[in-house]
Amino acid sequence: MMDITSAQNPRVKHLVKLRDDKKTRKQDGLMLVEGFDEIQLALAAGHKPQTVLSAPQIASRHLTVPHAEALTVSRAVFEKISYRENPDGWLAIFPIPRTTLDDLKLSKTPLVVIAESIEKPGNLGAILRTADAAGVDALLVCDSRVDVWNPNVVRASRGAVFCVPVVECDNASALEWLKGGKHALSGVEAIRVAAASPAGDAVYSKVDLSQPIAIAVGTEDEGLSNFWMSNADVKLKIPMLGKVNSLNVSVSTALILYEALRQRT
Amino acid sequence: MMDITSAQNPRVKHLVKLRDDKKTRKQDGLMLVEGFDEIQLALAAGHKPQTVLSAPQIASRHLTVPHAEALTVSRAVFEKISYRENPDGWLAIFPIPRTTLDDLKLSKTPLVVIAESIEKPGNLGAILRTADAAGVDALLVCDSRVDVWNPNVVRASRGAVFCVPVVECDNASALEWLKGGKHALSGVEAIRVAAASPAGDAVYSKVDLSQPIAIAVGTEDEGLSNFWMSNADVKLKIPMLGKVNSLNVSVSTALILYEALRQRT
Repeated sequence: MMDITSAQNPRVKHLVKLRDDKKTRKQDGLMLVEGFDEIQLALAAGHKPQTVLSAPQIASRHLTVPHAEALTVSRAVFEKISYRENPDGWLAIFPIPRTTLDDLKLSKTPLVVIAESIEKPGNLGAILRTADAAGVDALLVCDSRVDVWNPNVVRASRGAVFCVPVVECDNASALEWLKGGKHALSGVEAIRVAAASPAGDAVYSKVDLSQPIAIAVGTEDEGLSNFWMSNADVKLKIPMLGKVNSLNVSVSTALILYEALRQRT
Repeated sequence: MMDITSAQNPRVKHLVKLRDDKKTRKQDGLMLVEGFDEIQLALAAGHKPQTVLSAPQIASRHLTVPHAEALTVSRAVFEKISYRENPDGWLAIFPIPRTTLDDLKLSKTPLVVIAESIEKPGNLGAILRTADAAGVDALLVCDSRVDVWNPNVVRASRGAVFCVPVVECDNASALEWLKGGKHALSGVEAIRVAAASPAGDAVYSKVDLSQPIAIAVGTEDEGLSNFWMSNADVKLKIPMLGKVNSLNVSVSTALILYEALRQRT
């Protein structure tokens, strides 16, 4: 016997709202995660789901999560909620992590990313994957246009959203935190801000990125706002030999982060 | 007086087909390009449009293209054809370039990208921007799942699709060309193939990329096929410190291309 077989079930409607509506996610403090691997990553990172849904007609693997409500749903119900092209029969509701700037624990030589007003879920997801791979201390998502807990970001991040310390905040709070000497845990005084911009004046590979630094990257269309350009300690540019003279924002972020790793090893 | 004011005009229907339908693009050998800047880039790269459409109610800039049909359309007609979020009132029909492997002119130390079976227009567009910025000799789009002339690729590439020598071909033809010693123009004998894969065994920054080389990258979900893995001269991996252990395909491509540039300067 399945627990839910009707697409009209109020639980189903709520799940679809969590998928599609940023306001519902914010109001309820809940997010929808699809996919066995993504759910496993979230569990491994210490996140505890409220509910785990599976469609026995689709799911081939097994998963038991202690203390979480377990619901089975029909294929039709699952497909109504699912947002992936090739669903594997697993969905879960997780509380949205409420990480604040004060919660962040920094290493001795922090490497931070500031992502300002990113619009495309695919780009934010790719930045999260790179941030995970580069082992950054934190990703600050500032004045965001797409929320980090959007299902398309979670998917594009391949679950990295659960592994990287992420804080959503406004520009002013982020700068105050970076400059305020509040990093008592790490003994760091202040973190320099490096703004990535085609209008930058320092070639990224010639700048010392081995000291505590925050890399700021901006929107796809307009780049960084004046706030970060004017508050930056250094403005990084990436040399380009072509005619278009612009790189995808997740590509720019990756080139600078891996240059920092190169300098630090 | 505008030339087209009815969305039922057969020309409008054809334009929508060129936008949405890969088969129509292939059959007619035509593609749709939206945006003043993208059209300018295509013109600068020597491409000659068949038709240029503008919506005087939207367009703020002016453009005259000799020998091209010029049509004005109403705002409603433009919005029916447009595929951008903030249309600037400019569209054009260009013949699809029929570049073949034999047409490619290589530098003395070729740097080539092989993009196999990429599915997401955003990723192919980002790879094109990086290929332009890194000054690659050619991008071979092999066994493609999204065609390069898809409007979403053109848009995501910011017009780089017009600046980078692009050839669509199958895997076998690409390998034969790379290995066949047919690069008479450049005097190059054969180009080594470096496959990028999480299963690679050589750290990308420790491999000599300063010699003629083709970087092969694969699909978002499955990575490179066995064809390129088994035919590669070297298998590159990018070190990752995190838990997700995968990077976006356009990010991996960029890290390797910029490492090649670093070694070559």
